[in-house]
Amino acid sequence: MRFISETSSDGNCELLFILGEIPGVLWTPGGATGTRPLVLLGHGGGQHKKAPGILAHARRLVAECGFAVVAVDVPGHGDRPMDEEYNRIATENQARVDAGEDLAPLIAEFQALVARQTVPEWQAVLDSVQQLAHVGTGPVGYWGVSLGCGLGVPFVAAETRVRAAVLGLGGALASAGAAARITVPVRYLLQWDDERVPRAQGLALFDAFVSAEKTLHANPGRHGEIPAFELDSTLRFFARHLG
Amino acid sequence: MRFISETSSDGNCELLFILGEIPGVLWTPGGATGTRPLVLLGHGGGQHKKAPGILAHARRLVAECGFAVVAVDVPGHGDRPMDEEYNRIATENQARVDAGEDLAPLIAEFQALVARQTVPEWQAVLDSVQQLAHVGTGPVGYWGVSLGCGLGVPFVAAETRVRAAVLGLGGALASAGAAARITVPVRYLLQWDDERVPRAQGLALFDAFVSAEKTLHANPGRHGEIPAFELDSTLRFFARHLG
Repeated sequence: MRFISETSSDGNCELLFILGEIPGVLWTPGGATGTRPLVLLGHGGGQHKKAPGILAHARRLVAECGFAVVAVDVPGHGDRPMDEEYNRIATENQARVDAGEDLAPLIAEFQALVARQTVPEWQAVLDSVQQLAHVGTGPVGYWGVSLGCGLGVPFVAAETRVRAAVLGLGGALASAGAAARITVPVRYLLQWDDERVPRAQGLALFDAFVSAEKTLHANPGRHGEIPAFELDSTLRFFARHLG
Repeated sequence: MRFISETSSDGNCELLFILGEIPGVLWTPGGATGTRPLVLLGHGGGQHKKAPGILAHARRLVAECGFAVVAVDVPGHGDRPMDEEYNRIATENQARVDAGEDLAPLIAEFQALVARQTVPEWQAVLDSVQQLAHVGTGPVGYWGVSLGCGLGVPFVAAETRVRAAVLGLGGALASAGAAARITVPVRYLLQWDDERVPRAQGLALFDAFVSAEKTLHANPGRHGEIPAFELDSTLRFFARHLG
């Protein structure tokens, strides 16, 4: 793990790092010492580790919960080079959709392929970040919607350190198989008028989690319009399960 | 409005009253003066104004939000005499269900009948309670699930003083018509494994509210098993919209 830069503002310390080929960022409370809960944030498609939604979650988890927060670029996103194979598949998929094929199974297949790379990458990131003295091996949470759900569900299913997860804007076709192996508390965010994920697909994914505690929060609006008050609720969910 | 008794414990003042034929209870913070938000709690079928779930909500809304809270007995419940007409219909309905008829349309018809009585009753209760100096004409909220939803939806649709409502465990067949006239923020509680309300009926009722802000909270479990953390969430919802 190679440190690139460290900056502080408003009591929030931001550390940019590279782990192998993975560019990442770790946020911690200024002057933090000792073990604390750690939340991994998974960004959406076309976004990156410091996209506005990721930053908003990171800053509040640090400031209001005192947690450590980490985010990394998904392959082909942010500071990572274009991935030729993923790019070729994405281009082919677009052509198949243009020719009339259904988008959902193509997304499902593509996310499954990328997850085979990101699950071990994210596990390596947890390994390294938890070795830092001001993070340590406390409880871990995961947050991710849309692509962050498609990659997050197999990650949460595989990674026993994760104790609670906020997921959403995903579908059963892509994620129900792995969801059926998730037993930790889940908060699931669904947009009632999602133009990208059919409502029944989102409801079926919520249904698939085998967690004893899982809560669906559905709000009106399109894919990108999760209301701001759900962030408040996410903070309380993580505080309750990791704090 | 005739006062029956007033008791205080742990900073919570409980006033039993009768308004016409309606027995009710008003909870306020001890020593409260001046106007404050008021929440009307609608109890479930077979319950009453001081059922454990109602008491739990009342105590926390008073203690943690400083609100006034009022609950009354639905006709045929609690301290009210058996209502012969309602009783006859309920007995007939039970016989029809035993003979193989579908329960949902019978419940819908029955709740619509009772609501024609309870909507004006509850409006009269608001009128009287808001005349008390330590309640006043502040913003009003409504909470009710199951029967409290079946009677609550037409009440919230009719009563412009209500600024926010928590509803749940109801169905579209009984309530979609009135729900389509509700525009205030709604929190809707659905039990994913509800043995009394088919899941599709609950989802369709959530769909029917025309409120710009409405959030569905769905949790695993049967009709009577709403998790305790939803009460925390209800308090925050009312604090945000009435406080």
